Amino acid sequence: MSRQRIAIIGAGPSGMAALRAFDSAQRAGAEIPEIVTYEKQDDWGGQWNFDWRSGTDRYGESVHSSMYRNLWSNGPKEALEFAEYTFDEHFARPISSYPPRAALWDYIDGRVRKSGLKDEVQFSTAVRWVDYDRDQDNFTVTVENLRSGTTSSSEFDRIIVATGHFSFPNVPEFEGIETFPGSVQHAHDFRGAENLADKRVLLIGASYSAEDIGVQAYKMGARSVTISYRTGAMGYDWPDGMEELPLVDHFEGGTVRFSDGDTREFDAVILCTGYLHKYPFLPAELALRSPNNIYPADLYRGVVWQENPGVFYLGAQDQWFTFNMFDAQAWYVRDLILGRTPLPSAEQRAAHMRTWRDRFQELGGDADDVRFQADYVRDLIDATDYPMFDLDEVVRIFLAWKGEKYENILTYRDKSYRSVLTGTVASTHHTPWLRELDDSLERYLSTPAKSELEAILDGTDPSAERLATDTPG
Amino acid sequence: MSRQRIAIIGAGPSGMAALRAFDSAQRAGAEIPEIVTYEKQDDWGGQWNFDWRSGTDRYGESVHSSMYRNLWSNGPKEALEFAEYTFDEHFARPISSYPPRAALWDYIDGRVRKSGLKDEVQFSTAVRWVDYDRDQDNFTVTVENLRSGTTSSSEFDRIIVATGHFSFPNVPEFEGIETFPGSVQHAHDFRGAENLADKRVLLIGASYSAEDIGVQAYKMGARSVTISYRTGAMGYDWPDGMEELPLVDHFEGGTVRFSDGDTREFDAVILCTGYLHKYPFLPAELALRSPNNIYPADLYRGVVWQENPGVFYLGAQDQWFTFNMFDAQAWYVRDLILGRTPLPSAEQRAAHMRTWRDRFQELGGDADDVRFQADYVRDLIDATDYPMFDLDEVVRIFLAWKGEKYENILTYRDKSYRSVLTGTVASTHHTPWLRELDDSLERYLSTPAKSELEAILDGTDPSAERLATDTPG
Repeated sequence: MSRQRIAIIGAGPSGMAALRAFDSAQRAGAEIPEIVTYEKQDDWGGQWNFDWRSGTDRYGESVHSSMYRNLWSNGPKEALEFAEYTFDEHFARPISSYPPRAALWDYIDGRVRKSGLKDEVQFSTAVRWVDYDRDQDNFTVTVENLRSGTTSSSEFDRIIVATGHFSFPNVPEFEGIETFPGSVQHAHDFRGAENLADKRVLLIGASYSAEDIGVQAYKMGARSVTISYRTGAMGYDWPDGMEELPLVDHFEGGTVRFSDGDTREFDAVILCTGYLHKYPFLPAELALRSPNNIYPADLYRGVVWQENPGVFYLGAQDQWFTFNMFDAQAWYVRDLILGRTPLPSAEQRAAHMRTWRDRFQELGGDADDVRFQADYVRDLIDATDYPMFDLDEVVRIFLAWKGEKYENILTYRDKSYRSVLTGTVASTHHTPWLRELDDSLERYLSTPAKSELEAILDGTDPSAERLATDTPG
Repeated sequence: MSRQRIAIIGAGPSGMAALRAFDSAQRAGAEIPEIVTYEKQDDWGGQWNFDWRSGTDRYGESVHSSMYRNLWSNGPKEALEFAEYTFDEHFARPISSYPPRAALWDYIDGRVRKSGLKDEVQFSTAVRWVDYDRDQDNFTVTVENLRSGTTSSSEFDRIIVATGHFSFPNVPEFEGIETFPGSVQHAHDFRGAENLADKRVLLIGASYSAEDIGVQAYKMGARSVTISYRTGAMGYDWPDGMEELPLVDHFEGGTVRFSDGDTREFDAVILCTGYLHKYPFLPAELALRSPNNIYPADLYRGVVWQENPGVFYLGAQDQWFTFNMFDAQAWYVRDLILGRTPLPSAEQRAAHMRTWRDRFQELGGDADDVRFQADYVRDLIDATDYPMFDLDEVVRIFLAWKGEKYENILTYRDKSYRSVLTGTVASTHHTPWLRELDDSLERYLSTPAKSELEAILDGTDPSAERLATDTPG
C-alpha cells in the first residue's frame, strides 16, 4: 500500500494543531502520511494573522482575519493553553492572563517555529475545488497559487478542513440601511476603534463582537455606544455612555428606530451579526451547514463528517475551549488516520452523535455549555496520547471569567488566573487594559519606566480623565 | 448533432448583451443554442446593481458592485447608448446626459425586461469551477446555488465569461498603513461620501475612482481632499480644498509623508488603486491575466481566448466605450457560436492580434485610445448585423467630455450632448449636479416645484453657501 496522502486546508490554529499532531507522532517514531497544507494567506496563524485590509486581501481573496488593532484576548489564556506547550515554556516568565493578539500569535507560532513544518505549508495558495471520487475513495483538490496564478490538482486520501468559521460575515438586511449616511461595516471588517472617537456608534448583535467592539469604542472615546440585541441583552454593568436596546426595526437616513419604539441618531454602524459556516471549495455533500453552536450536526466526535468519513473538520464548533480543543481534535483525527483508533461504523457513529446531541439539546445556559465542551474535549483526549489537563479547573476559570465580566466589563482583563498546567499565576500587566493603547508584543513584554506608569496612573496620561470619572464599580 | 449548450457567466451589462444577442437572432428566426446564465447576485445589472454591503454579500460572496450612493454617470450617456435600444425608446422623452445609477440600471434592464430572458438566468448562483475536457472539447461548469447551498455540474460546449474586471480591488501595501487610525477602504467598498463631511480625506490613485470619489467628498463637505498619484497628476482645475500630491511614501499613524517630502494629516484614506482581472473559477490556462488596458493580450478581436477558442470574454478591456461595445462583442461572439462567422485559424488569429497590438503599443494618449477603441468596435459591428452608429461622432463626444472636465470638474455633468442615434439633444437636469443630493430615479424623472429649485439656486438650500464661494471657473 502506498503512503497515504492527506490535505490540510488552512494553517490557522486548527491546521497548525494538525501539523503538530502528525509531527509529534513522527518524532516519536511513527510513520506518518504525506501531508500537504494549503493556506491562502502569506503566513500561518489564521485569525491571529492580522491584515490591515478589509474586504479582499492583496490577491483579491476574501480577507480571512477578523482581528483589529488593540484586540486583546477576551478570555483568560489559562483556558486555552496547549497542554503540551505551556506559556511558561514559550515566554520563560509569567505573563498576564489576557495577552494582546501579537502575543498569542507568537505563542502558537512558537510551538512549531523550529519544527521545519512551515516549509511544508503551501502559502498564498487558495483551494478552489474538492472533488470526491467514490470509486477510488479519494479526493482531487484543485488549488490556485495566488502569487503565480497557476492552478493545479492533486489527489488525496483524506482531507482535513481547518478553515474556521469566523471569516465569512453574516450580513442580514435591515430596512432602510442603504439610506444610512454614516459608515456601515461588519465586525469582520472592523480594524480599530480610534476613528470612533466622538461618534455615536450603533452595534447590532449581542455576542463577543458587540461586547468587545463596544468596549473598544468606549475605550477610544466614542460619544455613545448603543448595542442592539435580538433575543436578549448581554446585561453587563455598562459605563455611562453605553446602553443596550432591542433590535433595530428600521433606518431612516441617520436615524434608527428600535423595536421598542425608541429612536436614536448614529454616526457609525457595526454589524456584529456573526459569521457563516462557508466552504466555497466543497461540494454540498461534503460541506458542513450549521448554525454556530457547540455541537454541529453530522460531525462524529465533532470532527468526522458522517456522510463521508474521509473528511475531517477541526474547530467547527462554537468555542469556549479553543487552542487546546483544536489540539485534542487534531490528535484524535491523526489517530484515526494512522489507524491507531478504529473508526466506528456509520451506525455506531450515528448512535454516538444522537447521545451527545440529546445532551446538547438539554443544555440550559453558559455553565452547561462549558461543562459540555469540557466533557467533549476530555472524551477526545482520553482516546489519544495528548496530555490530559484539569478540565474541571478550566471550567471554573471560564465561569470565574464570566463573573468578572459581570462585575466590571472594563476591568476584567486586569485579573490574573493560575495555569492548570504549570501552577504559574499570571502576572499583572504593567498598565491597566483600559489605559493601554499599545498592543505590540514589544510593549507587552517591556518594563515601562516607573515615571511613565505613574503618569498613566496619576491621571496625567491623556486617557485618564475620562476613566477617572466614568469607570464603574 | 445535438443542440449546442452555452454557459454565460455573469449577468451584468456584458452578460445581458450576450442574452440579448442570442434573443435577437432567435426572434429573427434563427435556431440558437441552449443557454444557461449564472449570476451570483440576486438580480442582474452587474456593477449597476447597488449593494449597500461592502466586503461580502448576504451569502458571504465577495460583493460585486463598486457603486456608491450619488454615483452619476461620469461620461455622457450619448457615448454608451445601445444602437438598437435608444434612450428615447426607453424613457420616451429627453433626459440629461449624465444620469444617476438608477436611471442607467433602468435603461439596461428595460431593454430586456419584457423578453422573458430573466427567467432563464440562474440568480444567486456562483460558478465555483470550470473544467475543460480536451477530448470532448467541452466544459464542465460547477456551480453553487447560494440560497439552497446545493452544488451541481453541467456540461457546455462553449463558455462566455462576462464577470467584469472592476470587482476585485487591487490593494497594494503602503508602509505603515496598519498604524493609520482613521478609516481605510478601497474605492470598491466606498458607498457614499456623506460621512466624509469635515474630514481630511486622502485618495490614493489618479484615475476615475480618485477623480469621482474626490469630487463626491468635496460635494459632501470634506474639509480637504488630497489625491496622490504615482505616475502623473490628473491636473484638473480643482476647487479650493482639493489638491494633488505625488505618491505616498509611508504612513506614521495619522500622518502621511509623500514622496516629495510633504506631510499631511488625514482622517480617512480611500485606496483608488484599481482592480484585478480575477477569475477564481477558471483554471490558469483559461484565465485572462492582464493589466487593465484597452487591448489585453491573447484575446482575438478582444473576445476569443487564443489558447482555447471555446472560451469568450466580454468587456475585458479598459473602457471608453461600454454598453454599446459589449453589444458589438456579444453580437460577434454570437455569430461565431452560430457559425455565421468563421473562426480563423490560430495562426490567423495570432497575426490579427499582432497587427492590432502593434497599433495599440503606438498609442500616445487618451485621444489615440478613444479612436483605437472606436475602430475596434467598428471592426466588430462590421462583422455582424448590430446596427452601425456614428463612431466618429462618439469619439468627438468623448473628447469634448474630456475638455469639459478640464474646464470644470465640478460642473461637467451639467452639459448636454446630442444622440448619434436619434439626434435628440439631452435635456438639462432640473438641478445642477453639485447641488443634487438625491440620486433616485423618482427624483431624476420628477419635475420639482419651481419654489424648490429657486431655493436651491438662490442659495437658501443648505449646500449652496459653500458652492457660491468655492465653485471655480
